[in-house]
Amino acid sequence: MSSKLESSGTDRLGAFSDAVVAVVITLMALELKAPESASPGALWPLWPTAVSYAVSYLFIAIAWINHHHLVQLVRRTTPRLIWSNFAHLFVVSLVPFSTAWIARTELAAVPVAFYAGVFVCVNLAYRLFERDVFAQADERLLCKRARRMARRRSAGTLLIFAAATAIAPWSPVAGFLLVCSALVPYLRPEAPAGAFRKASTD
Amino acid sequence: MSSKLESSGTDRLGAFSDAVVAVVITLMALELKAPESASPGALWPLWPTAVSYAVSYLFIAIAWINHHHLVQLVRRTTPRLIWSNFAHLFVVSLVPFSTAWIARTELAAVPVAFYAGVFVCVNLAYRLFERDVFAQADERLLCKRARRMARRRSAGTLLIFAAATAIAPWSPVAGFLLVCSALVPYLRPEAPAGAFRKASTD
Amino acid sequence: MSSKLESSGTDRLGAFSDAVVAVVITLMALELKAPESASPGALWPLWPTAVSYAVSYLFIAIAWINHHHLVQLVRRTTPRLIWSNFAHLFVVSLVPFSTAWIARTELAAVPVAFYAGVFVCVNLAYRLFERDVFAQADERLLCKRARRMARRRSAGTLLIFAAATAIAPWSPVAGFLLVCSALVPYLRPEAPAGAFRKASTD
Amino acid sequence: MSSKLESSGTDRLGAFSDAVVAVVITLMALELKAPESASPGALWPLWPTAVSYAVSYLFIAIAWINHHHLVQLVRRTTPRLIWSNFAHLFVVSLVPFSTAWIARTELAAVPVAFYAGVFVCVNLAYRLFERDVFAQADERLLCKRARRMARRRSAGTLLIFAAATAIAPWSPVAGFLLVCSALVPYLRPEAPAGAFRKASTD
Repeated sequence: MSSKLESSGTDRLGAFSDAVVAVVITLMALELKAPESASPGALWPLWPTAVSYAVSYLFIAIAWINHHHLVQLVRRTTPRLIWSNFAHLFVVSLVPFSTAWIARTELAAVPVAFYAGVFVCVNLAYRLFERDVFAQADERLLCKRARRMARRRSAGTLLIFAAATAIAPWSPVAGFLLVCSALVPYLRPEAPAGAFRKASTD
Repeated sequence: MSSKLESSGTDRLGAFSDAVVAVVITLMALELKAPESASPGALWPLWPTAVSYAVSYLFIAIAWINHHHLVQLVRRTTPRLIWSNFAHLFVVSLVPFSTAWIARTELAAVPVAFYAGVFVCVNLAYRLFERDVFAQADERLLCKRARRMARRRSAGTLLIFAAATAIAPWSPVAGFLLVCSALVPYLRPEAPAGAFRKASTD
Repeated sequence: MSSKLESSGTDRLGAFSDAVVAVVITLMALELKAPESASPGALWPLWPTAVSYAVSYLFIAIAWINHHHLVQLVRRTTPRLIWSNFAHLFVVSLVPFSTAWIARTELAAVPVAFYAGVFVCVNLAYRLFERDVFAQADERLLCKRARRMARRRSAGTLLIFAAATAIAPWSPVAGFLLVCSALVPYLRPEAPAGAFRKASTD
Repeated sequence: MSSKLESSGTDRLGAFSDAVVAVVITLMALELKAPESASPGALWPLWPTAVSYAVSYLFIAIAWINHHHLVQLVRRTTPRLIWSNFAHLFVVSLVPFSTAWIARTELAAVPVAFYAGVFVCVNLAYRLFERDVFAQADERLLCKRARRMARRRSAGTLLIFAAATAIAPWSPVAGFLLVCSALVPYLRPEAPAGAFRKASTD
């Protein structure tokens, strides 16, 4: 019975996070307001919204994938775990706000610094969640090397986001490109998450 | 067959509640409207929205966690249980409204009283749901002491919310702080919910 | 393997419907716009929105509960079943629109007729779905008498909604009260759905 | 353990996609803004919104059904699969935007071309996902003929959408009707998806 309880708890943790992320993604797309004019040129002023939506979507997709792998390692949904998950979702729920701000100000200095800052917070909350999951993960499912690699990778991403936050007030475009550069490596299909997963099934 | 029916019923009850809560949380975050100006000062007028969102988020997270533990004790999704769950979700769905009202009026007297009043209603609906779950819960999973403690805790929280509702018309800030003070104890990772859970696995 | 496929298909049908209904409910609550003024009187103009939200919430809760019981009887998610479910969700997705219309016009004649008409459509789509489920339901889980009762009950509700649609253009208040009167019987915890369920577990 | 991990991964992939699609559908319905006037004529100006919503709803329902069948064939949620699913959801999340654009401009030339173009992209992303699923699908669950038929059908639909995109700048109504004509065949209850499914259970 206890095991059924635990497993159902983990499933709901994942399902709830999925629902929040799904709504966050879809609401961000809503910022793309359909123009009243029917000319192709009417799409042009939407470029900052389109670009910032695409980058934020990519970021949230990466966060979901990492979260997805972590949840599979959870053996007991402890109160601490639930709270670090809620902390993670809280900062994720701020992404539409920061995304809309850089879009409306066309990547201005302060908004881009704030945008990168929110990414730093999502990353920190994720590391908190990761630490709690690793603390209870089965040694056989997650070897030491895989843990070290996962931690190192997320530390690297964190550093780049922090640098982007620091640089943005002087050069917002450089800050934004730095954020993008931290995301691109995750796009290789077999990359980060893949290594992580492979380690977990070895 | 019957057992499969029941378990799938319970799962859907939990999943449906999750979806409603996830949308409620995310829509509240939408009240944080991105400013048109790019100056850091443009964030300042958002403080009432940010503070009220954070408090409501915390409240809903606590409600979700408690609901989550209760659902694991459900053995049969009776009509009565489904209806008390719908009553609970109905008042939860009013939280974005009351949250937006205190934000727009910068914590004015009547809105804060209304805000605390909605929390009272959520608590009452939760106690209704709790009573129905306890009535069918397995003795082995939930000892008498755990039930008594759970009831006493939610009664305490209810009293504080009621006091906040009564005080707010005279001092809205005191009412709001009272609401916050009722939530803080739940933040200790191993606290309330933890005791509850421990009782259920002893 | 085939049985696993089928069961996962049914689960997803239920989960998808849940997500749509959860979003529909929450978006309806959004029509309750927080007033700018902090006086208690500022809530007064919201009464048509509050009343229509409460009635629509009740209606959708009843629809969810009935749908919930039906889905548990599904043995194979046939294409026909999926399509009648989509037809059902389509009309459910129009409820926020009709609800907002009666709220904005303070229960005017044409909008109330339209509102009741949408309920007629939801009911018709539900009966389509019900017919498809009953066609494949296990005789042992659902006896003939239970089917007949379920059909008769939904036919009765349908007739009242149709009458409300017809009466509303002359007396919108009478039409609206007729809609409410069709919903009230479902509120008795052990009523309709309960009978249905009892029949299915006898 | 590994098998439990895999199956839970697949379930979450499906559940997450469901949540995104459910929100997309419901937000599109929100474009139907309730008129302030209570006269029946007040509904008339909503026809472009109603028509475009109905067509987009139908399109997304078909996409969901196809996705639903594919997910049941997934044996391992590989990183590549997750990414093609995210690509698919990204273009699906643009449907409310393109739908609102044709509605606001009453089916003008450029918006209809853009609308059909988004459908082309959804189709391309779907084919990417389909290829990844077929690459790992069990031979016994999906015979060669079924694969070929599925591919041919989606290629046919793709061609019609591409033609609609090309024709719309000259005749938007013809383009829009072409899009509709590609969807109608899917409405026969036992059609496409049915053939697919039958093949998978033979």
